[in-house]
Amino acid sequence: MHKIEIKTGQSVELISITSRVQDLINKGRIKDGVGYLFVAHTTAGLTINENADPSVAKDIQMALNQLFDSMSFRHFEGNSPAHIKASLLGNSLNLLIKKGKIVLGTWQGIFLAEFDGSRTRKVYFSLIPAS
Amino acid sequence: MHKIEIKTGQSVELISITSRVQDLINKGRIKDGVGYLFVAHTTAGLTINENADPSVAKDIQMALNQLFDSMSFRHFEGNSPAHIKASLLGNSLNLLIKKGKIVLGTWQGIFLAEFDGSRTRKVYFSLIPAS
Amino acid sequence: MHKIEIKTGQSVELISITSRVQDLINKGRIKDGVGYLFVAHTTAGLTINENADPSVAKDIQMALNQLFDSMSFRHFEGNSPAHIKASLLGNSLNLLIKKGKIVLGTWQGIFLAEFDGSRTRKVYFSLIPAS
Repeated sequence: MHKIEIKTGQSVELISITSRVQDLINKGRIKDGVGYLFVAHTTAGLTINENADPSVAKDIQMALNQLFDSMSFRHFEGNSPAHIKASLLGNSLNLLIKKGKIVLGTWQGIFLAEFDGSRTRKVYFSLIPAS
Repeated sequence: MHKIEIKTGQSVELISITSRVQDLINKGRIKDGVGYLFVAHTTAGLTINENADPSVAKDIQMALNQLFDSMSFRHFEGNSPAHIKASLLGNSLNLLIKKGKIVLGTWQGIFLAEFDGSRTRKVYFSLIPAS
Repeated sequence: MHKIEIKTGQSVELISITSRVQDLINKGRIKDGVGYLFVAHTTAGLTINENADPSVAKDIQMALNQLFDSMSFRHFEGNSPAHIKASLLGNSLNLLIKKGKIVLGTWQGIFLAEFDGSRTRKVYFSLIPAS
């Protein structure tokens, strides 16, 4: 199991981690298999979406903010929107690995979604080889 | 493959199942690997979020209720909001297992999300060892 | 790794792919394990939900349309709602496989969710055997 640490800079932002995950695969000896990413936080998530036009990541954040940021909540810390957004995107991802490369569509990138930053976030990564 | 049965008591509630999943891992002989949870229902989901202040789970339910419970739907059973919430949280989770313990952040717990209770829900669990 | 190609016909629709995934499992020699589906697109997702009354799939689409289709976005292609819906459903699924069959509840089916069609969509599938 590998650990990736990501320093976020905004309260809400999507940060591409594709190359950091690919680096971990390059260092290993597994060519074909499945990779698992897990973010060990309750106010951050993981998602795969477009990594070409940065407006897409901004639009995802904006839409989630618009849904939840003005609702009234009970949780005393005041960051309930961040918890909800994290559960909606999810905190784990599966990645298929073929010939040492993450299987991704042309426009896809892997993002850490920070919803209550700035903080240092920990993402864990494991690989299981195909048989 | 193991089965966990969970009796829910409310129409909508998040129920922590972390210790029941950890118990299954304790009984097995796998120390390092990946665990898979799957809820075999269309109106219940699985999520990982804060298990310290119970207001967080309540806020997640409340926010989803607020988005969907007042919309008009076609499905004759009248539980379309429950189906939508289940698809948004998702019905499967990956868990990384290290030295016999589920890898979780300080505040993270694993929850069954009941959206159309009360019912008895079935969650399946499988483990694949790291190589 | 197998590839499934799905020709979608509408701009937004859920298409059942359960039997196509089961066919791939039938052709393989793995009886027990975990299957991974991955959609290699940023405006389509994967979800498991009711495959009995087709109104459920329609209601899921309608609810997501209602949340996002009238928001204002930055992305120049005008399909930001599709990107957001894809991230909310997610683009990968885990499937537990037992005795050669996908473990699914009575009403569950596996759906490709098209959010920006019509297009030809690629879904990848890998299997890892239980030990």
